[in-house]
Amino acid sequence: MRDVVIVGVGSTPFGRHAGTPIEQLAVRAAAEALADAGIERERIGSLYLGNFISGPLNGKEVLAGLVADQLGLPDIPCTKVEGACASGGIAFRHAWMAVASGQCDAALVVGVETMTHAPTSQITAALNCAMDNENDGPSGLTFPGLFGLAWRQHAHRYGTSRAQVSAVVRKNKRNGLLNPLAQMGAELSDEQIAASPSICDPLQLYDCCPTSDGAAAVVVMAADAAGGLPRLPIDILAAVQTRGSARIAGHPDLCTFGATVSAAARAYAMAGIAPSDVDLVELHDCFSIAEIIDSEDLGLVPRGHGGGWAAEGRTALGGDIAINPSGGLLAKGHPVGATGLGQLYEVVHQLRGTHPNQVEGARIGMTHNLGGTGVACSVSLLRRSDA
Amino acid sequence: MRDVVIVGVGSTPFGRHAGTPIEQLAVRAAAEALADAGIERERIGSLYLGNFISGPLNGKEVLAGLVADQLGLPDIPCTKVEGACASGGIAFRHAWMAVASGQCDAALVVGVETMTHAPTSQITAALNCAMDNENDGPSGLTFPGLFGLAWRQHAHRYGTSRAQVSAVVRKNKRNGLLNPLAQMGAELSDEQIAASPSICDPLQLYDCCPTSDGAAAVVVMAADAAGGLPRLPIDILAAVQTRGSARIAGHPDLCTFGATVSAAARAYAMAGIAPSDVDLVELHDCFSIAEIIDSEDLGLVPRGHGGGWAAEGRTALGGDIAINPSGGLLAKGHPVGATGLGQLYEVVHQLRGTHPNQVEGARIGMTHNLGGTGVACSVSLLRRSDA
Repeated sequence: MRDVVIVGVGSTPFGRHAGTPIEQLAVRAAAEALADAGIERERIGSLYLGNFISGPLNGKEVLAGLVADQLGLPDIPCTKVEGACASGGIAFRHAWMAVASGQCDAALVVGVETMTHAPTSQITAALNCAMDNENDGPSGLTFPGLFGLAWRQHAHRYGTSRAQVSAVVRKNKRNGLLNPLAQMGAELSDEQIAASPSICDPLQLYDCCPTSDGAAAVVVMAADAAGGLPRLPIDILAAVQTRGSARIAGHPDLCTFGATVSAAARAYAMAGIAPSDVDLVELHDCFSIAEIIDSEDLGLVPRGHGGGWAAEGRTALGGDIAINPSGGLLAKGHPVGATGLGQLYEVVHQLRGTHPNQVEGARIGMTHNLGGTGVACSVSLLRRSDA
Repeated sequence: MRDVVIVGVGSTPFGRHAGTPIEQLAVRAAAEALADAGIERERIGSLYLGNFISGPLNGKEVLAGLVADQLGLPDIPCTKVEGACASGGIAFRHAWMAVASGQCDAALVVGVETMTHAPTSQITAALNCAMDNENDGPSGLTFPGLFGLAWRQHAHRYGTSRAQVSAVVRKNKRNGLLNPLAQMGAELSDEQIAASPSICDPLQLYDCCPTSDGAAAVVVMAADAAGGLPRLPIDILAAVQTRGSARIAGHPDLCTFGATVSAAARAYAMAGIAPSDVDLVELHDCFSIAEIIDSEDLGLVPRGHGGGWAAEGRTALGGDIAINPSGGLLAKGHPVGATGLGQLYEVVHQLRGTHPNQVEGARIGMTHNLGGTGVACSVSLLRRSDA
């Protein structure tokens, strides 16, 4: 396998883009990534597109081909991949593989979703496409239900409190205020969080990521072909994809997602680094409690201490490990298929030293994208190439 | 890149499977392919699943993870890929790449679709997800409309007649009669075809593939790891994926699909063979006229002679080139995401010498899977490993 680097990134703001066709959002992010990389379209040898629910919500598929057509790419393989909320991270891993295995010297990967145009009931039904509906449909659980159960279990076992979980919300919403791409940054008090409407007890409104539109894109290249480009190349140390159970009953313990644990272990091994080497992580905080669980599953915070570390500020900018300096899904938004690429966009800017919420001296960054009930997971490790 | 072989295949019958959840159909075909290969689930290092419209028609996504879960596969990367009607062929190419590039020694690929449970209007809307609906939606064209236009142009330029097109229908429907997996084999007369209801002039009912449910699966392995398995390995000489325009206006000539032409050229070059070396092809006859166009685009029949060759019996069993001895999409059916894998299933049995419609002495076989308006295409070339 060849060494592969990220040479360009692009992103639309996450939020509401009502009236913009989904493929146009993707084209916008992709064109920005190509311009950022400073390479010609003719050099792109493969396109991957991450998307989850454009079929049910837009009546549009073959988005990879549509986007390539509108971008004016050559006659190259163009593939949409889907793994629920991990679609973007999975698409990135495939672009990395296409270059690492020598199929092409440069690949473009874009993630996209549009959701805000649809009524809430339709969005909920579409998101539930990520569940095992034959086995779990009769329970009536949607994703807030699943993460509400996980919170109860985490609180019961580790004493995780409302105040600790609120610390995650406050941190991510505050980080989002400084991120121009973020949909819902805010300065919130514990009282405001506690007073927000109940979504699915114990989850309240501010514990849940918003519904979002958006697109993000990354250009990857073989390290030995990336000379002379304008941006500092970012090394891809690891790009890992794992799976867990689709059935809720397939998870004996809701305080952990096995797919995250194994993805992190494989990523550290592949990169030859330890969790303590990671300077920042963009992880999958679809709900506040998810950040706590993910931070433990990734080995960044000791098991059971996710809530405590958040409350003590150890996961804030300047803490032991900066978690979601972008604002995360909670504040930046969660246009599902775009989220994994949006995380990479953020980490690349951190490692270039050009992030509006800069982690000082950031050398190694991580992304973590989790799909469905933990049925699919991707984890990446990136490093400044001059580090 | 390592040499890769097909060591096992499985398929459900194509047709109506009302009441069977889509993931169960996929599991059935995949389990059959694993049993045919005679390998343990623990040896599978990657899963690809081809599917097009389970989101809109079933409210189910993450099918790759769902199927892996129910099959009892280990914690491996499981990815759904989508490229409209070419989803199955694209999934196969990815499984081949996973093994060829050394990521794993064995990969499982399955294609699946269920459609017959949905009302026709919903099926038509779902199939139109494969169009560029922003640009072509206002024309009101559906896929029969597109292929009706192509027929008009082919007839105008080359004199292709109703009788010649009917020869394709008669051949494929007759081939389907001998294929136990086929949905709609029949012995038809020209008069019966001409008397069938008009769907979209000049296309009549028997010119159109039926709506189908079904699943098919293939197990691929590194050639040097496939010793001692029960079946004759089938060499993968080429697995190619290309793209064309998503917009109808992007095709200056509807008598040809550029994505097919370039996929075939690359496949022949990759395999180091000529079109005349191909003993049989399973190609994408979603409509009768499509078989004529595809056979010319693949270089198997001289340009403009597709209709003539069919009428002269040169594309039948025992002719110059056996086209769709399985019955093709017209008779075997077209469960969209499964079709590309179903073609591989058929060609593997031909090359093993175990097909109910055996092409005598078959040594090299081809598959051709075309998506949408020609926006995505995959072509594969297979050979008996003892040939």
